Amino acid sequence: MHPFDQAIALQSLGGGLFQGHTSERYWNFVSPFGGFTAAVLLNAMLRSPERIGDPLTLTVNYAAPIQEGAFAVAAQPLRSTRTTQHWAAQLTQADDPQPLATAVSVFAVRRTTWNLTEATPPDVGRPDDSEQYLPFPNLRWPTMYDMRYVRGELAAENSDSLTYSWIRDAQPRGLDYASLTAICDAFFPRIFLRRAHLVPIGTVSLNIYFHADDTTMSEQGTDAVLAVARANVFSQGYFDQEGQVWGRNRQLLATTHQVVWYKE
Amino acid sequence: MHPFDQAIALQSLGGGLFQGHTSERYWNFVSPFGGFTAAVLLNAMLRSPERIGDPLTLTVNYAAPIQEGAFAVAAQPLRSTRTTQHWAAQLTQADDPQPLATAVSVFAVRRTTWNLTEATPPDVGRPDDSEQYLPFPNLRWPTMYDMRYVRGELAAENSDSLTYSWIRDAQPRGLDYASLTAICDAFFPRIFLRRAHLVPIGTVSLNIYFHADDTTMSEQGTDAVLAVARANVFSQGYFDQEGQVWGRNRQLLATTHQVVWYKE
Repeated sequence: MHPFDQAIALQSLGGGLFQGHTSERYWNFVSPFGGFTAAVLLNAMLRSPERIGDPLTLTVNYAAPIQEGAFAVAAQPLRSTRTTQHWAAQLTQADDPQPLATAVSVFAVRRTTWNLTEATPPDVGRPDDSEQYLPFPNLRWPTMYDMRYVRGELAAENSDSLTYSWIRDAQPRGLDYASLTAICDAFFPRIFLRRAHLVPIGTVSLNIYFHADDTTMSEQGTDAVLAVARANVFSQGYFDQEGQVWGRNRQLLATTHQVVWYKE
Repeated sequence: MHPFDQAIALQSLGGGLFQGHTSERYWNFVSPFGGFTAAVLLNAMLRSPERIGDPLTLTVNYAAPIQEGAFAVAAQPLRSTRTTQHWAAQLTQADDPQPLATAVSVFAVRRTTWNLTEATPPDVGRPDDSEQYLPFPNLRWPTMYDMRYVRGELAAENSDSLTYSWIRDAQPRGLDYASLTAICDAFFPRIFLRRAHLVPIGTVSLNIYFHADDTTMSEQGTDAVLAVARANVFSQGYFDQEGQVWGRNRQLLATTHQVVWYKE
């Protein structure tokens, strides 16, 4: 079993309730890597027997640090039609009834239509042309990925926050909605591209729009995806990030946005 | 009382429950204008006595058409700290217990920090240099706004979906979080910029990041805001939209994203 699948594994307790456990491998400084938390919340929906279609949108709000250990995920379909399904999920721990993270999601059955990709991926070399990047020697979760930055330098006053990076699971694993979700939170916090020193940060809200069906996701296989990300604004303790995740054959797999808390 | 305030008015029933009524003025083809629904859901949070800080994020998922008439909004703070508050809200009608629209939001107390606006607004003329635009003579809600498009032609095969438009309430009203929310859903559906004929569409999910504090919002007054919007991809029945809303003095007031269902 791949380490990512081990990490996001959930035991179904029935009635939309699941039990999981934090993973040492996907641990961040004081709580799990936010991409792990988002993938776990989506996984509860993906594993629910009522599920219709595939993920179209996912919003995860991070309310408080998750502690090391067991957690519960409650996932509930709020309304379903023949082709769409609206979900809400919450992650709680121990005796605290208030959620530490919440998610809402729309699932949808995709169909054949007139299609057009307006955005274009940047013209960059292959992943092998660049070196693997490990930002913090003591931080575990980045070692779970093979990340290669081809634009943007960490902890430097770059003239903009735009980065291009290749990313895949360090131990190869076929791409799916859960792993793409985690990857959408795996880019550098944008403030590290505009300031020379590292500052405390934390993702407050993560939004993902999935643009590929299950077949397209499968075709990606274990290849690295190309991530494009940048910030619009850093203001009064919060900055944003806009990102695109490109797959093989110039397929736009996901667009993703987040708001991040920062301290000077 | 301004028509917008009349439209989004809520009667508090206590315990986080509110009652409202759809508005003829903000009516779309078969249900309320999505910006109205989003503003009503946010308004329930804004009006709650437990409220801490101002809106930072808002995600609204549209699950089913809202019928003309009365509706209920239930708004609940899920978790609060000294400086942030996580909310969920649902809109229901009559005896149907399943929500027709849901919202999650993060409120935050903003503070003085190192700030930087990386994005730049397009260099366009003043609102008065362009003509007011009323896309559909029989549609009511667009008449509630003074919209002036300076880039992008409706129902034409433009070479891209990028539009610049000025927008303000037709009857002047000082900008606030509720009206900015509605404005974030007031841009042309992007598919109308790439296809010569109109097709059925419906917003599935709307995401807004607010980048300005209450003081900055007040300083906007009744001036028009400048909206920039474009799509990344139209795929298998769903397309996305990315937008920026610019205020006076090159202030980025909000970034907004949505996913829209379309039929060929």
